[in-house]
Amino acid sequence: MIFSEILKNRRSIRSFEDKAVPPEIINSIINDSILAPSAGNEQPWKFIIINNKDMINRIAAESKKNLLERIASNPNHSAKKYEKMLQNDSFDIYYNAPTVILILGDAGLKHTNVNCALAASYLMMSATSRGLGTCWVAFGTEIYDPQMIEELGIPENYKIIAPIAIGYPTKIPDIPHRNEPQIIKVIN
Amino acid sequence: MIFSEILKNRRSIRSFEDKAVPPEIINSIINDSILAPSAGNEQPWKFIIINNKDMINRIAAESKKNLLERIASNPNHSAKKYEKMLQNDSFDIYYNAPTVILILGDAGLKHTNVNCALAASYLMMSATSRGLGTCWVAFGTEIYDPQMIEELGIPENYKIIAPIAIGYPTKIPDIPHRNEPQIIKVIN
Repeated sequence: MIFSEILKNRRSIRSFEDKAVPPEIINSIINDSILAPSAGNEQPWKFIIINNKDMINRIAAESKKNLLERIASNPNHSAKKYEKMLQNDSFDIYYNAPTVILILGDAGLKHTNVNCALAASYLMMSATSRGLGTCWVAFGTEIYDPQMIEELGIPENYKIIAPIAIGYPTKIPDIPHRNEPQIIKVIN
Repeated sequence: MIFSEILKNRRSIRSFEDKAVPPEIINSIINDSILAPSAGNEQPWKFIIINNKDMINRIAAESKKNLLERIASNPNHSAKKYEKMLQNDSFDIYYNAPTVILILGDAGLKHTNVNCALAASYLMMSATSRGLGTCWVAFGTEIYDPQMIEELGIPENYKIIAPIAIGYPTKIPDIPHRNEPQIIKVIN
């Protein structure tokens, strides 16, 4: 797929077909994502692939519970505006995607967040180039239950940076509104 | 350009031809970069374009000075390993690129760093698709001189997240070593 088509088709997908993604395709996408640059070529990323519906539901429930607790204790929390949506039991933060990929980053490195975001960007574009759809679900980082962390296999000193829902989109939505580019200054 | 070529050709470029990048190409690249997703579609990014060689040299010198001071006062600083290189007067952190784009992010928003990293990733790929080369120069964020901040036009409450050197590469290097993807667990 040419780049301009990827730009057009890489949308946040919130409705997926009931169709599994073949493991070899997931592996190819992850192989592409690690071609992202990273500060000092540190490659601070690790991946967890979840195809099990029950497990996806459990990590979604854990994240919702933790987020709602944080919102309740801090009315200025940035997710306050999503409170009603999160309280809705039928709202699935992963939009019934057949697969969730968690990109973890080494919490001890200074540039981990941005480096893993670069890998996530590559991952989302690679998925798009293969006819798949993705959604970076920031809510999904809120996993604190030690037993769940162990079950997922998250190593000590690693944190979840990009939880990404992935699957075949039922349709590709239009590009949501973008502001004009804010070019503050051109210094010639 | 098809996506697999972009993956191959998007390398960190550290040697540029002595050839300006036309302003309309820079604008097209920035237009592509704002198609990146952002949390809640917040689009926390702004851009500064610097084509002026003297200004590029001055922001590079400011960053080097500040970094060296921080390294001197903290021997555990993550940039300690680059100290010798930074002390070398002839080392240009922007590798004599004809243009530097600073991507700024709204410092008041929770996900600014990762969102601007996504825009940076789009920007670097868009540049690649147009035969240009880029290098994300993390050193370049270290600008603290109030007069320089004013001269650059950095608004209050915004911070530099991605300083990106951009120009025509003298050559495209091979892909530097990548570790095998670290897939911790597949949960089926």
